[in-house]
Amino acid sequence: MLSVKHLIDTYSLTADDITQILDTAASFESVNNRAIKKVPALRGRTIVNLFLEPSTRTKSSFELAEKRLSADSLSMGGSTSSVVKGESLADTIQTISAMNVDMFVCRAKLAGTPQRITENTDAVVINAGDGKHQHPTQAMLDLYTIRKNFGHLDGLKVAIVGDLAHSRVCGSLAPALKTMGAEVTLVGPPTFQVDDPDWFGCPQTASLDDVIEDMDVVYMLRVQLERMEGAAIPSRREYNRLYGLDMTRVNRMKPGAIICHPGPMNRGMEINADVADCARSRILNQVNAGVLTRMAEMYLLLGGENNGLSA
Amino acid sequence: MLSVKHLIDTYSLTADDITQILDTAASFESVNNRAIKKVPALRGRTIVNLFLEPSTRTKSSFELAEKRLSADSLSMGGSTSSVVKGESLADTIQTISAMNVDMFVCRAKLAGTPQRITENTDAVVINAGDGKHQHPTQAMLDLYTIRKNFGHLDGLKVAIVGDLAHSRVCGSLAPALKTMGAEVTLVGPPTFQVDDPDWFGCPQTASLDDVIEDMDVVYMLRVQLERMEGAAIPSRREYNRLYGLDMTRVNRMKPGAIICHPGPMNRGMEINADVADCARSRILNQVNAGVLTRMAEMYLLLGGENNGLSA
Amino acid sequence: MLSVKHLIDTYSLTADDITQILDTAASFESVNNRAIKKVPALRGRTIVNLFLEPSTRTKSSFELAEKRLSADSLSMGGSTSSVVKGESLADTIQTISAMNVDMFVCRAKLAGTPQRITENTDAVVINAGDGKHQHPTQAMLDLYTIRKNFGHLDGLKVAIVGDLAHSRVCGSLAPALKTMGAEVTLVGPPTFQVDDPDWFGCPQTASLDDVIEDMDVVYMLRVQLERMEGAAIPSRREYNRLYGLDMTRVNRMKPGAIICHPGPMNRGMEINADVADCARSRILNQVNAGVLTRMAEMYLLLGGENNGLSA
Repeated sequence: MLSVKHLIDTYSLTADDITQILDTAASFESVNNRAIKKVPALRGRTIVNLFLEPSTRTKSSFELAEKRLSADSLSMGGSTSSVVKGESLADTIQTISAMNVDMFVCRAKLAGTPQRITENTDAVVINAGDGKHQHPTQAMLDLYTIRKNFGHLDGLKVAIVGDLAHSRVCGSLAPALKTMGAEVTLVGPPTFQVDDPDWFGCPQTASLDDVIEDMDVVYMLRVQLERMEGAAIPSRREYNRLYGLDMTRVNRMKPGAIICHPGPMNRGMEINADVADCARSRILNQVNAGVLTRMAEMYLLLGGENNGLSA
Repeated sequence: MLSVKHLIDTYSLTADDITQILDTAASFESVNNRAIKKVPALRGRTIVNLFLEPSTRTKSSFELAEKRLSADSLSMGGSTSSVVKGESLADTIQTISAMNVDMFVCRAKLAGTPQRITENTDAVVINAGDGKHQHPTQAMLDLYTIRKNFGHLDGLKVAIVGDLAHSRVCGSLAPALKTMGAEVTLVGPPTFQVDDPDWFGCPQTASLDDVIEDMDVVYMLRVQLERMEGAAIPSRREYNRLYGLDMTRVNRMKPGAIICHPGPMNRGMEINADVADCARSRILNQVNAGVLTRMAEMYLLLGGENNGLSA
Repeated sequence: MLSVKHLIDTYSLTADDITQILDTAASFESVNNRAIKKVPALRGRTIVNLFLEPSTRTKSSFELAEKRLSADSLSMGGSTSSVVKGESLADTIQTISAMNVDMFVCRAKLAGTPQRITENTDAVVINAGDGKHQHPTQAMLDLYTIRKNFGHLDGLKVAIVGDLAHSRVCGSLAPALKTMGAEVTLVGPPTFQVDDPDWFGCPQTASLDDVIEDMDVVYMLRVQLERMEGAAIPSRREYNRLYGLDMTRVNRMKPGAIICHPGPMNRGMEINADVADCARSRILNQVNAGVLTRMAEMYLLLGGENNGLSA
């Protein structure tokens, strides 16, 4: 049982909440070393995927997680939906809720949308990414991947590299790592650093080269290419030279250190193609963990009595 | 067993047909006071949702009803579909039918499309709204909501208010209410009234204020805002003043009288925001009834031997 | 067990492969003369439908086949997908594969795309039509339809008529028929004939009238109307006069000879309306066979131990 009703952000989660999610995800990965493909845990429950911002990978991950929990799900959103034209969000949510919906999974361009949904429904709400605010299910899959690799999270040294100030991935991952006892170093050009110099107690630096040898995990953020055009920020080539992960940098990493990226990657920009596919890369493991941790979050939030694994 | 093979309009339904639909819907709402979420009644049956006109709420309601009956369903339509370009409707329907489809649920801009589909398939057809013609599944959910509130339909006084002549909701609801013994009064500006002065035996009036105190149900139609621009019809402000439901009018309603609206609402136009959310409003109950009555219609039309509730 | 891991083309299939597919499809059509609607053969398996080129009929056929096998399926593609913008196909496939996907069904404008997918996943790949290259699942449904009609394939005389050189349907059907011992004659205007004069040992002719009386099956290809505009090729009226199937030609066909078309038809162009609906037409039988043969292909390629029919 989690301490929260909804999954809106990571800074509201306790270490116990996060541990429950990761442990439950692990139980979905295998039982008695046998891979689990499908459980009847949420049979008869209804989940609505409300993707007001386009998404392929996160939406697919949720849809597969829902199918593997045997839930009934409905995906809506996009430009043709009444959700984005005419009717207000409040009326749309109240209407869909009246069809006996148990959960909304919401992605939105506008930060705060998932929180607003909670004010208009009795259903549980999961934030699947809202503007530059939070992306908590991404953080959980990241933690699962890292914990699975090292066996623990506490004491690990993690660098998050890129456009720190505008990244919902960083905004979710850093607090969650801190809650679990990891040390987080934020790395990015000065114009991309967060304003608060003591943000979640994470030191910031503009030099990747200064810190990379000391890190257990190097987490590369996706560059939003459209931001690379301003005058006060580095050019694309300059960005790649200073903050891109290439093999020269990878070879300076500690033995056993790993590389993560939330995807989709700009190969050759924040991460070079050979790095993405090298032995340190855990990028596809993250994707795999995405389905498992989302299953765990949905299962725990809907208060299933029995995850079906014992059946 | 209904007296019709397809559900195309409400004026072909007998009182017994309607009673069967409402009773079956009630059985899906609860058994032994326990809410039903899912039944295996239509397992292995295939239903195609053909939405040639955009719709979020009706489409979602059907899709959830299909999942709760355990049917296999497929939704097609929209601008990318071959249904609307190139191939003729007849060829499309014959082709999809050849894939062993049991039922088509069709929404279309063009009145008469569901009827035309019946001529090209052996499958059962449900009209989910065709142009300005009919919207029978809306009428059934309206009747369910009203009957659930009052315990009966006969003798109730119902006002339907708005653009009467162009509304498929009115065109379906009025005859169904009459069949069940209710008294229906049509209220709207002269330019929006139906041509036939004895249409289903329903008196018409241009004055909402003259009749509102006598009504058990005030059913507000959605205003099609794009119609409000002509010269011969009232302006938006004038419409709201004469036909909009505000708290002053609501306070004149009888004790126990209720308010319905098919949604989506234009708050501040045909219905004020506080009225939509007041204690007399049954608008979200209507949405809830939509899933139940659609389950009942699909179940009865597909001639299920057993609705799975006894299992 | 098929001799191939993926279904990319028909010229890699052995006669035994094809016979297994057709026999398994027949077992899905009925057991003990009872029609099969749904089997649990692929419960818990995940299939991703990646339609990078619009399709209604093939996509619906696959989706229904997947539901009737009880697989979990996900459909993606279209203009909003990250598949077609930004991220490379390789990264997209690796990402989706990491979600534990068992099979990709892929349609693409670009010939060779399904083959490239096999290089980026451990999952099984089915080609649902790639450019002008191959459409093997179409060929299997064609063979099923023809075999069901005649009881065998060997020795049958089949004319394939139309734009031979640019048709993936012809490119798949002709080799498959030859493998099964049928005689194939290619009929089309000189500019539409294949370059290789001994292509799969199929004679070519520009005269439909010369050969029609001798054929057991006349298979009309869909005309791509946009190709009809060039100078070196026949005009639309000329095409219909020389290669269109009208009742005069149909009446010259052998007793028992049948007509096929992959759809969607251009009625009045390559096939006249009355011909499409005449007693010799097997066009809707082909559509029906599409679901059955796709069930068989998916079932055999995913190596199901048990097709669920004995349960």
